[in-house]
Amino acid sequence: MLEDIKKIADRITDVVKNDKYGKEIKPDYLREAMFDYPSRGGKRLRPALFFWCCKMCGGEELAGLEKCAAALEVWHNWTLVHDDIIDGDVMRRNAPTTHIALAETAGKKFTDTDAEKYGRDMALLCGDLQQGWAVDLLIRGGEEAKLAPSLILKMVRRMELRANVELISGEALDVELAEREIDDITVCDVMHMIDLKTGALFRCACELGAMAALGYDKGREFEKISDFALYLGRAFQLQDDVLGTFGEEKKLGKDIGSDLRERKPTVLLLKTLEMGDDISLEIIRNVLGRDDLSKADIEAARNAMVRSGAYDFVKAETERCFASALDALKYFPMNSGRCNLESLIEYLYSREK
Amino acid sequence: MLEDIKKIADRITDVVKNDKYGKEIKPDYLREAMFDYPSRGGKRLRPALFFWCCKMCGGEELAGLEKCAAALEVWHNWTLVHDDIIDGDVMRRNAPTTHIALAETAGKKFTDTDAEKYGRDMALLCGDLQQGWAVDLLIRGGEEAKLAPSLILKMVRRMELRANVELISGEALDVELAEREIDDITVCDVMHMIDLKTGALFRCACELGAMAALGYDKGREFEKISDFALYLGRAFQLQDDVLGTFGEEKKLGKDIGSDLRERKPTVLLLKTLEMGDDISLEIIRNVLGRDDLSKADIEAARNAMVRSGAYDFVKAETERCFASALDALKYFPMNSGRCNLESLIEYLYSREK
Repeated sequence: MLEDIKKIADRITDVVKNDKYGKEIKPDYLREAMFDYPSRGGKRLRPALFFWCCKMCGGEELAGLEKCAAALEVWHNWTLVHDDIIDGDVMRRNAPTTHIALAETAGKKFTDTDAEKYGRDMALLCGDLQQGWAVDLLIRGGEEAKLAPSLILKMVRRMELRANVELISGEALDVELAEREIDDITVCDVMHMIDLKTGALFRCACELGAMAALGYDKGREFEKISDFALYLGRAFQLQDDVLGTFGEEKKLGKDIGSDLRERKPTVLLLKTLEMGDDISLEIIRNVLGRDDLSKADIEAARNAMVRSGAYDFVKAETERCFASALDALKYFPMNSGRCNLESLIEYLYSREK
Repeated sequence: MLEDIKKIADRITDVVKNDKYGKEIKPDYLREAMFDYPSRGGKRLRPALFFWCCKMCGGEELAGLEKCAAALEVWHNWTLVHDDIIDGDVMRRNAPTTHIALAETAGKKFTDTDAEKYGRDMALLCGDLQQGWAVDLLIRGGEEAKLAPSLILKMVRRMELRANVELISGEALDVELAEREIDDITVCDVMHMIDLKTGALFRCACELGAMAALGYDKGREFEKISDFALYLGRAFQLQDDVLGTFGEEKKLGKDIGSDLRERKPTVLLLKTLEMGDDISLEIIRNVLGRDDLSKADIEAARNAMVRSGAYDFVKAETERCFASALDALKYFPMNSGRCNLESLIEYLYSREK
């Protein structure tokens, strides 16, 4: 599986770096920015889901399909470009975010210009361009793979449903959650947001792979694939939240405790507030939203999360989601596609140990 | 022609208001914002170009085509939503812009929230949703009109080229022009920007109409249609620039003199700087970028523009562009489509008298 995903990642990087879309884009720095995130690498989880679901449903390795897979990655990336503007993030995958990079390279070329605003404005347009690029890639890939034009149209519309309507709703709900009072937010609200923000694009990747293989877009296979993708997305996100407070900074490459500092309404936090005794609650309320968290504060918060039973609850829920994802795959015959998907679940599951 | 465009406008408003796209979008205020601009009306020039070019190329009035036409309007509108964020505009068609409206309706629901930023963030996502809606509408319209799926794919790709790559490049160049020193900008730079920012979507509308009628996407018809659309776009924009300084505030519903206040590098301004004598130059340089322009200042600037010969130059250029647009239509047989397009040119031409 790890070898396979490495190969897929290389193919995707190759496709996006050499793609001819938008040769005419001006100014040049905008065109270069469009290629930036998609060329930076990353896990390429969505293209892998596409290929493995295609294979699991009996699909062939058709030339062109890597463009369809790359379309999912480009889509994912434009949402990151716009997310980063909204969140004001400055780093992504060890390099400046698009709006920061454009402020530096383009914004500073002009005297009397607000370089930061210029960077944000150009990054906004950059994400817009990438959304179009993703659609164009999906169509060209489908045509090269000689899929039926009517099927390609269905694939584009599926992408607009899952990756536009649902994913952007998830992003909007996430932005909204950050503004709401934490006591008014339910676990159900957060799970719903996760299904949309993370699950919908996983689901899109899996469904498009199945559609490319099967030539149709409805039926029992799609219910099973939907279950698999949504449970995988939930498990992935619940785990991420646990690692965000309990992980090791070095391994994760991200700042431990930032969820607490930002009062991020994770299931882990909501469950602690729901299940915790008075002492746990006092500890948690004392650290939430504080900028000056010490290691001892984080350790105290961890203890409160464990003592309250929230930690075990989230671990058990994560496990249940991984198990349900695995269970959904049993509907399909065993082949290299299903095998890779099962190994992926194993691999992600062991990430937290 | 005027009666026909009124009918088209009503049909488009009907289509966008009742469209089922994105029923699932959350939060509700985001879904409502998505429908806002497209439901506000406006000239519906792009849908009219689509229908009339379709007719001129022998196309039938097929059910579904109004969705394709509406796709062009929705596309136009998402670019306005993002433009308005970039420009910080507060009003559009006599109502608050999307980001201002969302700041009011959504942002102010939360205590301690920066409502203006919240409005901008949600408007950013709103424009992203509208881009997907436009693609989905075009596909559904093509399918309802029973166009060949391979043709619909070509239409989507044409929209991604003209309305994404080219139009967004035009928007980016426009943002860039505003930051450059006026003496470093050439008339050629501005014309290039106009062809992309205004011409490309006109061209897209005309080409999609012709494709729906002809079933193919290349050939002499498309060269002629491209000439028509680009010249029409240039004439339209040059005229707009003249009206921006010489028009009547009441008729235009826009602030006369704002181009001077904002140092907008119009062809009219660049030509005045190029052709003006010392006195004209002094007058112009004195008013440029000033916030406190009096009516006398604007009158002085007008005189300088006329005296320098720039006014006549731009009027002649506008006339030449309208004539070239008219000339391109002569390639096509006379029918109601061509007749409406000719009347449109006449109508727009007489706008400045």
